[in-house]
Amino acid sequence: MATVRLIDYAEASAEVRAVYDDIMATRKVETVNNFWKALASHPPTLRRTWESVKQVMASGALDPLTKELIYLAVSATNGCEYCIRSHTFSARKQGMTEAMLGEVMAIVGMANETNALADGFQVDIDDAYRAVPR
Amino acid sequence: MATVRLIDYAEASAEVRAVYDDIMATRKVETVNNFWKALASHPPTLRRTWESVKQVMASGALDPLTKELIYLAVSATNGCEYCIRSHTFSARKQGMTEAMLGEVMAIVGMANETNALADGFQVDIDDAYRAVPR
Amino acid sequence: MATVRLIDYAEASAEVRAVYDDIMATRKVETVNNFWKALASHPPTLRRTWESVKQVMASGALDPLTKELIYLAVSATNGCEYCIRSHTFSARKQGMTEAMLGEVMAIVGMANETNALADGFQVDIDDAYRAVPR
Amino acid sequence: MATVRLIDYAEASAEVRAVYDDIMATRKVETVNNFWKALASHPPTLRRTWESVKQVMASGALDPLTKELIYLAVSATNGCEYCIRSHTFSARKQGMTEAMLGEVMAIVGMANETNALADGFQVDIDDAYRAVPR
Amino acid sequence: MATVRLIDYAEASAEVRAVYDDIMATRKVETVNNFWKALASHPPTLRRTWESVKQVMASGALDPLTKELIYLAVSATNGCEYCIRSHTFSARKQGMTEAMLGEVMAIVGMANETNALADGFQVDIDDAYRAVPR
Amino acid sequence: MATVRLIDYAEASAEVRAVYDDIMATRKVETVNNFWKALASHPPTLRRTWESVKQVMASGALDPLTKELIYLAVSATNGCEYCIRSHTFSARKQGMTEAMLGEVMAIVGMANETNALADGFQVDIDDAYRAVPR
Repeated sequence: MATVRLIDYAEASAEVRAVYDDIMATRKVETVNNFWKALASHPPTLRRTWESVKQVMASGALDPLTKELIYLAVSATNGCEYCIRSHTFSARKQGMTEAMLGEVMAIVGMANETNALADGFQVDIDDAYRAVPR
Repeated sequence: MATVRLIDYAEASAEVRAVYDDIMATRKVETVNNFWKALASHPPTLRRTWESVKQVMASGALDPLTKELIYLAVSATNGCEYCIRSHTFSARKQGMTEAMLGEVMAIVGMANETNALADGFQVDIDDAYRAVPR
Repeated sequence: MATVRLIDYAEASAEVRAVYDDIMATRKVETVNNFWKALASHPPTLRRTWESVKQVMASGALDPLTKELIYLAVSATNGCEYCIRSHTFSARKQGMTEAMLGEVMAIVGMANETNALADGFQVDIDDAYRAVPR
Repeated sequence: MATVRLIDYAEASAEVRAVYDDIMATRKVETVNNFWKALASHPPTLRRTWESVKQVMASGALDPLTKELIYLAVSATNGCEYCIRSHTFSARKQGMTEAMLGEVMAIVGMANETNALADGFQVDIDDAYRAVPR
Repeated sequence: MATVRLIDYAEASAEVRAVYDDIMATRKVETVNNFWKALASHPPTLRRTWESVKQVMASGALDPLTKELIYLAVSATNGCEYCIRSHTFSARKQGMTEAMLGEVMAIVGMANETNALADGFQVDIDDAYRAVPR
Repeated sequence: MATVRLIDYAEASAEVRAVYDDIMATRKVETVNNFWKALASHPPTLRRTWESVKQVMASGALDPLTKELIYLAVSATNGCEYCIRSHTFSARKQGMTEAMLGEVMAIVGMANETNALADGFQVDIDDAYRAVPR
């Protein structure tokens, strides 16, 4: 049970409906998921967040599947249940195989391990890593 | 300054040298970076971590560049300076362009934002997200 | 189901009851919430934590509502379900409106995004930010 | 040293300059801080992040100082050095006194402690906390 | 409901069964817990993770109970429900008393508090802490 | 450079000096470290934090060295540089050997890895882990 009321399309304001319509059209789905219904409790956050997600997740230098895998990796690191479940779902829709999921999680696990080790020993940064592309 | 002494090749035990040799051969580099020199303060951790990283980061269902991008995304989420710098370096070596780096960070930022929003509102998980592939 | 037994007032020791009594008197409530009943499994932690929370959350340079909003923001960042729910509840009791909640979460989301970006790019700290008030 | 080149106004593209101009005009400052110069390495991220921060931090149901305190609390929780320093600076500019800073940090410390305790004991959520405003 | 199918012994491949057999023999239990059944969805991750956990948690300079307490402390800090519950269980099996659990959580809470304070005030590192054992 | 002024003994108020005196007497040292000098910018936080740390870290069901190892493990997980360095220092003073430090970090790394895996796959909690001691 969310801490705010989820807003269904039927009861939504025109402003909220406009965002919902764009989400459904962009994603070719017939309903919006609960994340958006919760954000609709604060319409400016709904609109801004959707516009941002839409821009960030559109195909660019990286393809949509790679983007979903990265999103999932961050969500797993943060332990956000909603985000892990929704992005595992979306990544599969984008073509993630079970082998890919296994490899993503293997990397996530390993990165969390070595992050803790590098921090835990306060490893000195190598000179090579300080150079920046001109 | 790391909290343990960094072990250089010249002073390393045979056990540590064997790991260093494998790192250099696998990565086609002429020295190991400080992370491994710090882990060498505890040889079993050095060997186990290297064997794991080597296995996890080898080409598989995902290519090495995609793997580096995921590693970087986790490291940025955790705010681990050493890991961010070393994996930004490695990802560039694997072919990451500046446009790709920008997109990775855009996703990392967005995922951290929506993770906090989904947790912050305790959004109910949609039924569709609970189904598991048979 | 907590990993320790929750201690109800009826079965509590005199030491635990004294803390429960102070919680109920201070907050003008007729029962203590489960957090305290779990801490009561280790009475020194119950007493110390309560004394600290009581001191920290009392009106000071910041008013109680602002304090609750900050507490909620930290809890959302950490993704602690119990804390998010209990502090959303307390903040509403202190007068938080739905618009305020929306703005708190918008800031929490944004801060988590820009924290990841600043870490992810390892942005150099501006000189102006290093000055300290005399 | 950031992992990307910081873009100064003099060498910035028209698109980046437009954002820099808006930042300087909105904040009544004569230069932009390094965070924006780093984001300028990926112009869409610069523009989107600035538009979002501008919207989120504008006065609303919460005043600008309260917003800065919340931003600082999240940044301290995440341990993001850049963000802690820049938002401590901004909050002081908005009127944060040393007593307020002390209280913010006291809450941040306490919230991180009780978040860990609630998670660590897996405390059962009280029924009262599950109710949602209609 | 995990995001991958849990693999029971009866349906497991020979490779997975070999790992399960070693887990059961090493721990003197008659079934493996769900963590391993989920990892079995990606056999290389199952095998590598088990080999690592087995090596790391074996008696060494630290005894098994101390190791479990440290594991639990990390899990509580990360708020990982599965890990908190499974390691509270394992630690009790290794002899953790309720008084010890109370003290572990008191330290975990305190450390999370002072970590946030040290980061939040960006405390300068004392010279004494920079010295490294030769 | 901390974001607040560090308060030296010579300029400290009587209230702050009383805490410093107790720290030095309890720890048998001749000066207080910077953490306390920063907290002294807000005397109630200094006093409360010291009283809490003193109570929590005193010998109890767990010995002081074990307590320091747990504190260090949490600090490494959070990536708090100040805390990692100060508690590595304190743990060595309490008798931590280099082999122990290596094992602590191995556990910290492993726990962070498996925490991410358990969260990332959203592993179902085993029934056995839900039982609570009566």
